[in-house]
Amino acid sequence: MKNRVFIEKVIPEINGGRYYVKRTVGGGVVVSANIFADGHLSIRACVLYKHESDKKWSMVAMKHESEDRWKGRFETQKTGFYTYKIQAWVDRLTFWQKSFKEKVRDEEPTEGEIEYVVLLLKELAENFPKTKNQPLVNAYKLLSSDKPLEEKIDFAISRDFTRLGRQFPYVKNETVYDKNLRVRVGEHRELFTTFYQLFPRSASPKAGQHGTLKDVQNLLPRIKEMGFDVLYMPPIHPIGSTKRFGKNFNPIAGKGDPGSPWAIGDSSGGHKSIHPELGTIKDFENLVGAGKKEGIDICMDLAFQCSLDHKWLKEHPDWFDFRPDGSIPCIESPPLKYYDVVSFNFESNDWENLWNALRDIVLFWVNKGVKFFRASVPHNKPLPFWEWLIAEVHKVDHSVIFIAGSFTSPRLLLGMSKVGFTQSYTNFIKYDTREEVEQYLKRINGPEQRQIYRPSFWPTVPDILPYHLIAGDSNIYALRLLLAATLSGSYGIYGPVFELMENEALKNGIEQYANS
Amino acid sequence: MKNRVFIEKVIPEINGGRYYVKRTVGGGVVVSANIFADGHLSIRACVLYKHESDKKWSMVAMKHESEDRWKGRFETQKTGFYTYKIQAWVDRLTFWQKSFKEKVRDEEPTEGEIEYVVLLLKELAENFPKTKNQPLVNAYKLLSSDKPLEEKIDFAISRDFTRLGRQFPYVKNETVYDKNLRVRVGEHRELFTTFYQLFPRSASPKAGQHGTLKDVQNLLPRIKEMGFDVLYMPPIHPIGSTKRFGKNFNPIAGKGDPGSPWAIGDSSGGHKSIHPELGTIKDFENLVGAGKKEGIDICMDLAFQCSLDHKWLKEHPDWFDFRPDGSIPCIESPPLKYYDVVSFNFESNDWENLWNALRDIVLFWVNKGVKFFRASVPHNKPLPFWEWLIAEVHKVDHSVIFIAGSFTSPRLLLGMSKVGFTQSYTNFIKYDTREEVEQYLKRINGPEQRQIYRPSFWPTVPDILPYHLIAGDSNIYALRLLLAATLSGSYGIYGPVFELMENEALKNGIEQYANS
Repeated sequence: MKNRVFIEKVIPEINGGRYYVKRTVGGGVVVSANIFADGHLSIRACVLYKHESDKKWSMVAMKHESEDRWKGRFETQKTGFYTYKIQAWVDRLTFWQKSFKEKVRDEEPTEGEIEYVVLLLKELAENFPKTKNQPLVNAYKLLSSDKPLEEKIDFAISRDFTRLGRQFPYVKNETVYDKNLRVRVGEHRELFTTFYQLFPRSASPKAGQHGTLKDVQNLLPRIKEMGFDVLYMPPIHPIGSTKRFGKNFNPIAGKGDPGSPWAIGDSSGGHKSIHPELGTIKDFENLVGAGKKEGIDICMDLAFQCSLDHKWLKEHPDWFDFRPDGSIPCIESPPLKYYDVVSFNFESNDWENLWNALRDIVLFWVNKGVKFFRASVPHNKPLPFWEWLIAEVHKVDHSVIFIAGSFTSPRLLLGMSKVGFTQSYTNFIKYDTREEVEQYLKRINGPEQRQIYRPSFWPTVPDILPYHLIAGDSNIYALRLLLAATLSGSYGIYGPVFELMENEALKNGIEQYANS
Repeated sequence: MKNRVFIEKVIPEINGGRYYVKRTVGGGVVVSANIFADGHLSIRACVLYKHESDKKWSMVAMKHESEDRWKGRFETQKTGFYTYKIQAWVDRLTFWQKSFKEKVRDEEPTEGEIEYVVLLLKELAENFPKTKNQPLVNAYKLLSSDKPLEEKIDFAISRDFTRLGRQFPYVKNETVYDKNLRVRVGEHRELFTTFYQLFPRSASPKAGQHGTLKDVQNLLPRIKEMGFDVLYMPPIHPIGSTKRFGKNFNPIAGKGDPGSPWAIGDSSGGHKSIHPELGTIKDFENLVGAGKKEGIDICMDLAFQCSLDHKWLKEHPDWFDFRPDGSIPCIESPPLKYYDVVSFNFESNDWENLWNALRDIVLFWVNKGVKFFRASVPHNKPLPFWEWLIAEVHKVDHSVIFIAGSFTSPRLLLGMSKVGFTQSYTNFIKYDTREEVEQYLKRINGPEQRQIYRPSFWPTVPDILPYHLIAGDSNIYALRLLLAATLSGSYGIYGPVFELMENEALKNGIEQYANS
């Protein structure tokens, strides 16, 4: 009740502290707040912060900026979580000096005033270790000595005295703003990544031949030379054959059509297996190892859905989002429809086993050295699921990076970054006029966004060939690449296809590559 | 974990629910929030609210406005506190109909689909009393009858079916936004009050004679006739004689000078006594009673400070903010200085007894029928003190109205309204250009302010004769009165002095009345 200071409007604070903000090692958090007290009291404020491995709080002074706004900054030196709070209090020493100066201005001060501040200085000195409190001891010794009153007054109004208040914060009757504010500190590269996406089945040096992980491995030096540091591969798992797509979204696959790699699972395996034509787990491990040597990480696709041949359909029918009549609903992503996959029912009665099984998929690949996961259509899965999954994986390996591979509403993109996605796709792909791009950049650099949302810019992706690139010439390609690469710390290209500036659309009016 | 809906950016919510918002009987609270889920799920949301005397929550549906913004409104029909929260969930019935319609568009639905929704309707019907669930029962009876499939499909895609989802909200896996959000509902007049201020000692019909409470009583019909409903009197307690002010802030009182009524207390009594020359407690009670008959409430001044002769100075020296050397600091309110009063030390070691004593002063007058208290210089007292005091008094009498009589920074004015002041003075008194007034009105009508801050407009007060009224003519007086009376539901005038358009300043450059 005796805490006179008011603290409010703290930045950063996401949804009242419900979600953590994001930083990287070597960065810092600028914490600001409106801090004020009644009357004309002198106040001080500091940020207290603590890494999850620390036992004690560290303290950094806040500075008074304009009006009632105060600011302080602490450095994020280690990965993991920091907690931070604000503490503010009436600075009795400084307030004493302020009112003493007024008295000196108006009348003759007495020894009584000095005696009071001697007591205050002694109390203060006791709160600091003897190795540090010498200036305080010197001060009260001078003020309690038999030197002339004039000399004491001169010291009491001096800048040396003023400095004591700043140097020795005397925290008493403090207000504490303590709302479980947290910052997650990741590795520096969470901010700076360059993605190169390719379909390994198209990585063969021989035209018409199914590529392999070994072929991909051979491409690493070339990818490195172009300056990329993450190689992102769409799903590399076995592909279902039931209702398999043919070329150009032909709903009936021709003989030898490989199908969509997002239709995961057949009798040979599911999300933890490698498509036999691509190679083996051993090949994959070799690829990851070779990548590490070149400074290239492998990014996998998290496509949490199953082909109609995935063995889970029989083992765990209640995990799936079948239609009431047992049929499989088609998944619509206008103008396209997907019949070759079935979605999970994340609220099924057996949801805990389903969620654990999905987490185990991620941990399986983490265990193989994968640090990057690009979630496929994450905006169609529950936010609480992602929040849980990402936290679970981070408990095992804090350096894992999750990318929300979504083109959806800004609110949902922001929501996904709140629940923990490290980076997020953007709608940059859709905007081409200067006005659109500027407006969009303003929107994604809002006060909340800049604390948690790390945009990744892509000129194209395999299933979007935007209007402005259809039949586009090399200037437009170069321009879009330049924008993507410079508007943020993260960008990526749909590798070979973008390099070759493929610009033919599937059909008139559709933003899809032909012959994809 | 299964709650897929996201609720955020709730309005009204003050400091994360730390402070209550304010309404009056017959009003309502519009609750809005961003509410969304992943994918394209159909969602519903409602506001749940509960008066402190209610056992059960009431529910009111929220409406989807633009983007992800939802709005609902509940009525505040009783004084006291309401708690409110938001609940949102996936509407399975509506979502079923939506996807069923898609199926109907694309292919031939089967009985299986219908069978599923029959189960859903049955489950739903069980959640509502039999007296109300007839439409649900009728629906599943029709859908499970042996009528032709075509007829069932027609019903399942009909508007009648759509209505069922709206009429019977089926709350499951709901997200609850539950942050101790509260609204205090006061009487209607908290919004609409007209103050007439007078010094009772100036209320005598005979010039030069000390007025009495009886004289004030005689003025009630006149005050009523002018349309005022609250009579505000500055302190009516005994006045100290030590360091008493004379006329025009002369630091030495002349013989017979009555002193400032804010210098409360002498040997005859303090904050619970009536100045002997004004009358008795009985006279005061008569005045309150007569006022009630005329429809005029009495507003008292809460001047929490003491004259140097208040008996508390000796009984409780540790309650006071003496200077370290035992002297009394002068209170500065530039350009003026007050030597005739001493402030309390709200953080004294004996603070609990001090706070209780101050609360008892308020309760003493509440017990005499006083419902309005205008706090004097409240911005120099701790905000936690006011929060505690107002809550304590409201426990005894919820209808008591506290007015923050401050001219101070907008943030502190807002802070005082957060901790519970019913109305607050404004800085309107200082602004005279159209630009200033417009800017100021915008500021005090901000999104937070409109939930909690009730401005009271005054053209002048006893200790401020603003520049624009010094030597001002009747047009300016009329204009300022008109503005004060129309800009908000609360205004007041420093009665007789304003009526007579006294416009002489104390001296050049000072915004103070001469001969006050």
